Amino acid sequence: MSEPTMTTIEMTALDTLEVRRRARPLPGPSEVVVDIKSVGICGSDAAYLHHGRIGDWVVYGPFVLGHEAAGVVSAIGEDVSPELLRGRVAIEPGTPCRTCSQCIEGRYHLCPDLAFLATPPYSGALSEQIAIPADQVHLIPDSMSFDEAALVEPASVGLWACRRVSLSPGEAVLVTGAGPVGILAGLVARSLGASRIVISDPSPIRRSIAASRGLHAVEPGSETDPPDAAVKTFDVLIECSGSEQALQSGLRLVGPAGRVGLVGMPQQDYLAIPVTALIPREISLFTVNRYAHTWSTVIELIADGRVPTDGLVTHHFDLDQSPQAFAAQQHDPNAMKVMIHA
Amino acid sequence: MSEPTMTTIEMTALDTLEVRRRARPLPGPSEVVVDIKSVGICGSDAAYLHHGRIGDWVVYGPFVLGHEAAGVVSAIGEDVSPELLRGRVAIEPGTPCRTCSQCIEGRYHLCPDLAFLATPPYSGALSEQIAIPADQVHLIPDSMSFDEAALVEPASVGLWACRRVSLSPGEAVLVTGAGPVGILAGLVARSLGASRIVISDPSPIRRSIAASRGLHAVEPGSETDPPDAAVKTFDVLIECSGSEQALQSGLRLVGPAGRVGLVGMPQQDYLAIPVTALIPREISLFTVNRYAHTWSTVIELIADGRVPTDGLVTHHFDLDQSPQAFAAQQHDPNAMKVMIHA
Amino acid sequence: MSEPTMTTIEMTALDTLEVRRRARPLPGPSEVVVDIKSVGICGSDAAYLHHGRIGDWVVYGPFVLGHEAAGVVSAIGEDVSPELLRGRVAIEPGTPCRTCSQCIEGRYHLCPDLAFLATPPYSGALSEQIAIPADQVHLIPDSMSFDEAALVEPASVGLWACRRVSLSPGEAVLVTGAGPVGILAGLVARSLGASRIVISDPSPIRRSIAASRGLHAVEPGSETDPPDAAVKTFDVLIECSGSEQALQSGLRLVGPAGRVGLVGMPQQDYLAIPVTALIPREISLFTVNRYAHTWSTVIELIADGRVPTDGLVTHHFDLDQSPQAFAAQQHDPNAMKVMIHA
Amino acid sequence: MSEPTMTTIEMTALDTLEVRRRARPLPGPSEVVVDIKSVGICGSDAAYLHHGRIGDWVVYGPFVLGHEAAGVVSAIGEDVSPELLRGRVAIEPGTPCRTCSQCIEGRYHLCPDLAFLATPPYSGALSEQIAIPADQVHLIPDSMSFDEAALVEPASVGLWACRRVSLSPGEAVLVTGAGPVGILAGLVARSLGASRIVISDPSPIRRSIAASRGLHAVEPGSETDPPDAAVKTFDVLIECSGSEQALQSGLRLVGPAGRVGLVGMPQQDYLAIPVTALIPREISLFTVNRYAHTWSTVIELIADGRVPTDGLVTHHFDLDQSPQAFAAQQHDPNAMKVMIHA
Repeated sequence: MSEPTMTTIEMTALDTLEVRRRARPLPGPSEVVVDIKSVGICGSDAAYLHHGRIGDWVVYGPFVLGHEAAGVVSAIGEDVSPELLRGRVAIEPGTPCRTCSQCIEGRYHLCPDLAFLATPPYSGALSEQIAIPADQVHLIPDSMSFDEAALVEPASVGLWACRRVSLSPGEAVLVTGAGPVGILAGLVARSLGASRIVISDPSPIRRSIAASRGLHAVEPGSETDPPDAAVKTFDVLIECSGSEQALQSGLRLVGPAGRVGLVGMPQQDYLAIPVTALIPREISLFTVNRYAHTWSTVIELIADGRVPTDGLVTHHFDLDQSPQAFAAQQHDPNAMKVMIHA
Repeated sequence: MSEPTMTTIEMTALDTLEVRRRARPLPGPSEVVVDIKSVGICGSDAAYLHHGRIGDWVVYGPFVLGHEAAGVVSAIGEDVSPELLRGRVAIEPGTPCRTCSQCIEGRYHLCPDLAFLATPPYSGALSEQIAIPADQVHLIPDSMSFDEAALVEPASVGLWACRRVSLSPGEAVLVTGAGPVGILAGLVARSLGASRIVISDPSPIRRSIAASRGLHAVEPGSETDPPDAAVKTFDVLIECSGSEQALQSGLRLVGPAGRVGLVGMPQQDYLAIPVTALIPREISLFTVNRYAHTWSTVIELIADGRVPTDGLVTHHFDLDQSPQAFAAQQHDPNAMKVMIHA
Repeated sequence: MSEPTMTTIEMTALDTLEVRRRARPLPGPSEVVVDIKSVGICGSDAAYLHHGRIGDWVVYGPFVLGHEAAGVVSAIGEDVSPELLRGRVAIEPGTPCRTCSQCIEGRYHLCPDLAFLATPPYSGALSEQIAIPADQVHLIPDSMSFDEAALVEPASVGLWACRRVSLSPGEAVLVTGAGPVGILAGLVARSLGASRIVISDPSPIRRSIAASRGLHAVEPGSETDPPDAAVKTFDVLIECSGSEQALQSGLRLVGPAGRVGLVGMPQQDYLAIPVTALIPREISLFTVNRYAHTWSTVIELIADGRVPTDGLVTHHFDLDQSPQAFAAQQHDPNAMKVMIHA
Repeated sequence: MSEPTMTTIEMTALDTLEVRRRARPLPGPSEVVVDIKSVGICGSDAAYLHHGRIGDWVVYGPFVLGHEAAGVVSAIGEDVSPELLRGRVAIEPGTPCRTCSQCIEGRYHLCPDLAFLATPPYSGALSEQIAIPADQVHLIPDSMSFDEAALVEPASVGLWACRRVSLSPGEAVLVTGAGPVGILAGLVARSLGASRIVISDPSPIRRSIAASRGLHAVEPGSETDPPDAAVKTFDVLIECSGSEQALQSGLRLVGPAGRVGLVGMPQQDYLAIPVTALIPREISLFTVNRYAHTWSTVIELIADGRVPTDGLVTHHFDLDQSPQAFAAQQHDPNAMKVMIHA
């Protein structure tokens, strides 16, 4: 830590990551510096790298990816509680303004000035260190690994989806898409008392990983097998694939008064939604934009095993192997969550 | 009442209504017979008459239209409280089974066996009399006209939409479509404490009627005028037109954490919905299927003037003029609510 | 089953249970006959036996106790689905009218005509057989024991308490009173994602049983130990002892915006509640009256081990040993749940 | 305004108010200075003056009363939007920290560091001018008087009570206590669609004022007259008197699943509450601590006449007549709201 510079991974052009040396950050008065230990690659990181944009967020100039991050606090600002120093932490990546109407209403994730790691123009966590407001780091128990701590972010999406749809204990849940977010959403739903949970995905590898965590994983089209099942519908659909077809298929299986969480960001601007068929069942659709107020709950659910994450991290790379990490995430069919270690 | 037969209006083919004589109904043990005084024509009545179907509901054989109805109880079954006899009543048209899981959960409007007036295979109210379970009639105050009582049905749609979107006092509401349901939804929203209420419709006549009831009525495209308005978004959108374009335009004007009630039944099976644009604002879409638990509340809101309905009924016809009534509803640009009197 | 009579246990006077022979029941058209296998003794059964009343419910004449019951369907009425025959079932003891305003709103447990087993004037389940409406029995999986099925009733109280207080995942919960309902409430809360769960009781035996099920059980007064604990308050208090002192002590430990479920029925008519101290924290108090809509959820939570009930049943007696069973429930300090087997 | 000093009213001892000259305030960077026009006397102001404390809040040293205030912005700090300058405003008296867990959850009124006007150690508004964070002032329409703007504070208590009890349109509401808060709570409830609203108070003068605003005002004991009324219970009780007897009487009139808002701060530390009688009806009790997120809604409801406040202000005094104003509030039986004008 004595060197004045550190390694940072910069996206310098589409599909181009470069290893750079940059000045180490110093903490502002209410900030901490975190020595990054684990950063998971998210689909949004890959989208920025390969397409340069997600909706209205466009990458300009050199850009640092990574927002699923955990590490150790190595320095604190003058206004920060000393007990954070040397703390092992999971990082909540979105810093709100705290004064706009959304923040005041308790919906800080909808703050128009949210500064979110690896969302333009804000740099991400693929660095040896980052500085971030102290309110954004959450202490984790000693028993929790940094990889698990990095998974708090995608699991938070799952928890927030469950909250958005007002999941009640005993409800039957269909999750479409068995990527990390889908599997974690299914595991979180179970830890909240959901009853029958089915997760569908065309990939046998993904189904296999989901099944190894105890979820009932099926091919799309088999969600209500066996054909003589007593109940053929779900109370809740959590759509995590971004696929219009998965959404349309899933909606057919939602029963009266059912609720749908729209988590997966579609590629296209518009989705064809069968409103005419949804009205008689009075189905509700809830878009899901990240999360709020989830970190401490998810840390606890993962730490005590109610949300078992082992097996979800399939690949590990060092920070300067980040290009290979993104390649694995993109091309290796066995990749579930790819983790980079600084 | 001494004659054994009565007049009923039957739809005998597409676009064909015939005046028939039919046996007067007798009340079952838990039923009442209502002498019909006012029946409003709904868009769904017109859809059955002109197209023979709405979604999966298909008209087979002679069919009686009309479900916005009010009248006087002229006979009661043996298990019915005598205080209903000669009572002036508004009719709630959907009779649930009371034992299925939806009914037990309090969502009787989603009962799969709901027997709803003028929804195949159930006959409607365009008759001198109908028999209906006593639980389906609601006494109205003496000060309330039968026309107002018939408007309780479309106003109930408005109240239910407000409940579905969890309308809070002080919220800004946009209503798209200034037909009877849209105007009543706007009036109900105001009676529940909504703040800024804007209703948009391309028809100047409809805007004029909405404005006469105190609503701020605008052309589509002018919902957020003047251009220097401090707030450019709405908390709630209640879509009452069934138009994809109105929905898409309206969605652009919904702010963060906004909620949308989908009331208007679209002509087409699928609507193109900009999910990608809704996720960042975390907008929620609630389909609205009729109503439940609304009658007594709406009766009170209309009776004491909090929902002022005068001016909404633009045309009156006798029962045997029903063909002319439907023609007016279809062709007269000045028609808002057309009322038929038995 | 060929004999025309069967054994029934009748309370014939205060503190007096007698073994009687009574005619076997026949199922009504929509009823089933259940061969009773397990009946748990509830505090309310003991209260009727020893005091003859609970509030306004007063025992007149011979009375059959027992409402936590499970068994096998041995006969069905003509309107009952044949798949129930020979089904292993947990019995939901309260039969609602389905037509009053409470039932229609989905709150059937508040039905003024609720016919509840072992609540005067309705007989209970301490018999070889009982007849009950088919809607009141819920099939259980083969893996579930009848004792577990009988525990669905007290666990339902726990689930309903969690719902009444709108328990959210991640919340800290204090349960006062480690009887069966308290322990089950704590276990259910954990299965719904609650975070820190503490249960307090003066009895070391009860604490020991609670601890064996994985709950953090403490003496009253030690709920927030260790003294250096970061958080000294709970989000939710579930009061299961009926003790004014436990309630008052517990209320001191509830944080801002905290919610309290009042489950334990007090001996006295009035409790002294520190409203002046609750207002600044804006605490909410929810009385809890049994349950509604809980059976299928609780069956699933117990069946798959998320609510682990082993160890809760401490005593077993045959039906004709019912007097000894009640004596054990009353006098044996080791008694948690006493189960009677017909 | 050119003078460097201004008039302030200081409470210098129990029952002692003195007129003092103090330095005019200067706005901090994010503050405004408001020229006070109207300040309503609240029961809590009187309690501080006469008893020196409310619960744990104790007056030490010279203290300025008054928190129901309105005026004109006469100076702004460097970070404040210029459009506030010369704005006519209603003042929201509680300034939260915006960073604690309560603030982040959207419950800023429960912020442990809330700086509330005229709550020790924070000075109040009985001055020619005060400085306050700009976020705490809300612009009012030109048509709204300063007296009405000062009434936004007590009306906010009423709105928040309605929200705390989740008042639904069509519900029957009983308000106990026809002081300003009770009357405003009843008027707000009506503006939110409540149905039957009854307000009870022993004072004929207070009942008369309530009745003049259109509320059904009765003596305690006559809440459900006439004796043949169809419905004898209320869905919601809003207790605004602080009287144990009023609460106990009111609770008898609350129906199944009823909700109670506890607004009135009792004199005594404990209230005797009939929990045993509340459990069968499963009644919920919500303490009400001021308000949050109410100002803009209440401004609108008052400004457009949905909450008609004329007649509520019964007495007017100049700032240096503050002692007389408090005497009138304490002794004049005709006093409803006493307003002081700087």
